[in-house]
Amino acid sequence: MLSEFDLIKQYFDRPAGTGPQRAALGIGDDCALLAPAPGMQMAISSDMLVEGRHFFAGEDPCRLGHKSLAVNLSDLAAMGARPLGFTLALALPAADRDWLDGFSRGLFALADTHDCQLIGGDTTKGPLNICITVFGAVPPGRALRRDAARPGDDIWVSGTLGDARLALAGLRGEVALDADALATAGQRMHLPTPRVALGVALAEGGLARAAIDISDGLVGDLGHILARSGVGATLDVDALPAGLVLARQEQRLRRAFTAAGGDDYELCFTADAARRDEIVAAGAGCGTAVTRVGRIDGAGGLRLVDAAGVALDLALAGFDHFA
Amino acid sequence: MLSEFDLIKQYFDRPAGTGPQRAALGIGDDCALLAPAPGMQMAISSDMLVEGRHFFAGEDPCRLGHKSLAVNLSDLAAMGARPLGFTLALALPAADRDWLDGFSRGLFALADTHDCQLIGGDTTKGPLNICITVFGAVPPGRALRRDAARPGDDIWVSGTLGDARLALAGLRGEVALDADALATAGQRMHLPTPRVALGVALAEGGLARAAIDISDGLVGDLGHILARSGVGATLDVDALPAGLVLARQEQRLRRAFTAAGGDDYELCFTADAARRDEIVAAGAGCGTAVTRVGRIDGAGGLRLVDAAGVALDLALAGFDHFA
Repeated sequence: MLSEFDLIKQYFDRPAGTGPQRAALGIGDDCALLAPAPGMQMAISSDMLVEGRHFFAGEDPCRLGHKSLAVNLSDLAAMGARPLGFTLALALPAADRDWLDGFSRGLFALADTHDCQLIGGDTTKGPLNICITVFGAVPPGRALRRDAARPGDDIWVSGTLGDARLALAGLRGEVALDADALATAGQRMHLPTPRVALGVALAEGGLARAAIDISDGLVGDLGHILARSGVGATLDVDALPAGLVLARQEQRLRRAFTAAGGDDYELCFTADAARRDEIVAAGAGCGTAVTRVGRIDGAGGLRLVDAAGVALDLALAGFDHFA
Repeated sequence: MLSEFDLIKQYFDRPAGTGPQRAALGIGDDCALLAPAPGMQMAISSDMLVEGRHFFAGEDPCRLGHKSLAVNLSDLAAMGARPLGFTLALALPAADRDWLDGFSRGLFALADTHDCQLIGGDTTKGPLNICITVFGAVPPGRALRRDAARPGDDIWVSGTLGDARLALAGLRGEVALDADALATAGQRMHLPTPRVALGVALAEGGLARAAIDISDGLVGDLGHILARSGVGATLDVDALPAGLVLARQEQRLRRAFTAAGGDDYELCFTADAARRDEIVAAGAGCGTAVTRVGRIDGAGGLRLVDAAGVALDLALAGFDHFA
């Protein structure tokens, strides 16, 4: 029998000297103690993952450990903040050793890559639910806020879009994919890569203005930047970089899944046109492709156009949990 | 139909000028931005509340909003940290306006009392689950850590113990309580008071050494201080201050529910015997009674004694979610 305290000790409270040590006090007290470096602001974000909603029942626990933290690190990336640490609150139907072993391995592998320390949390019995709150550091005035886009800015996206949504369509039988294609696209769905280095380079270098991570689909997420910034935008749907597998699908699917696929965890950001070369260089420095896909307008909402500049009406919308 | 974004806007993203404004950036971006005052450490804690586990299905949403934040503020209190802000991640079966109205009222009433700002979070569909992460500020070296108790220290508790557990026994029909008694004891179960002012006074005044909040029962929670500090303790069970209603019950129940009731959210702390007068004055300054209930020993685990100093064997244990 694995008690609540043994569970924490065995799977989450790592021996001294293992993993990043960023907090003045970590797991095991009423609170953790953590301070950003003098003069830095702390960036804070929470994401909750629910079984049957954000992942299928029976999902591989190692992949789930990775993804649970990845979606949170992606929020830090979208702010341009360097990871410091995170808390993990976990509701589990039972204390299953195999599940805990896989989950903690996936979680810590990604955490260590980003020098991000698990500093505390909560463990309880209940329907499977994973809630992570992540902490990062960003210099004052440098955070990539949603309200900072200006007319004339370029719109950029990192990496490629749509393979995660294509994998979901494949699993649901909406699109026929062979096993190799499903496996390749599935990597993007199950093991997203938070673009932390790129976000930090864009913020600390003062290269970008506004940014958001693409979790609910580009059109919906870019819409948040437009609303907060009080601007419009023109988006060249055919310029959107499709994922490896999606790039081989028909145009209708490519357009729909790059523009509004969801679960991409790439960055969408805006920047002054004078910074183009530096942005391409920053992307190359992080090993992350960056693609210019549109521009910010003074008003007019979000207009989707094709490669020839002709307006498209794709009837796309971002994801809404209660729609 | 209430969309995810409308839900946040209507119930949680309060108009500018309403409530505390402590963050450089609050709800509505990928991350919130929050920094403690220069030179202060940030104290961080997460608690997750699951329906059917931490509260009954159908629980009054206003009380639930209060309690969800109260249990987190209690962790700040146990560290001696001043509240700054919190994130709220919420899984809801449906976007129910009445529930959201009640929950947000209870939540913000307590948050405003403690000048604690809701700075972000997440909203999703799923079995009812409330996960709050709370942030406070504490001067370096002043936090009331579990590992700081020393042999010879007095052991103190704040307020009274056991009425929350008595109310649970009443609701379960294990103990016969009349309606008035159940209502009075039930206040302690449903609307716990986090001892924030006392915790801050003890920490900032350097009055206490170790502290913990009593959520799983005094014996279990004090046990964490003993384990972390490498010390033992002698606890005078008959000195434990029983709640108003519990004080009228028989000795066996008084002893069991004060020593190991759970859900009290009082503070247990240790302090040098030279600080007794200052501690009593600090409690009086906060309007919170403090009672000396034992002493820290060099070793020997936790020994329970009666008023005459005779050893008791009550076979008590702290709460364990997976036991």
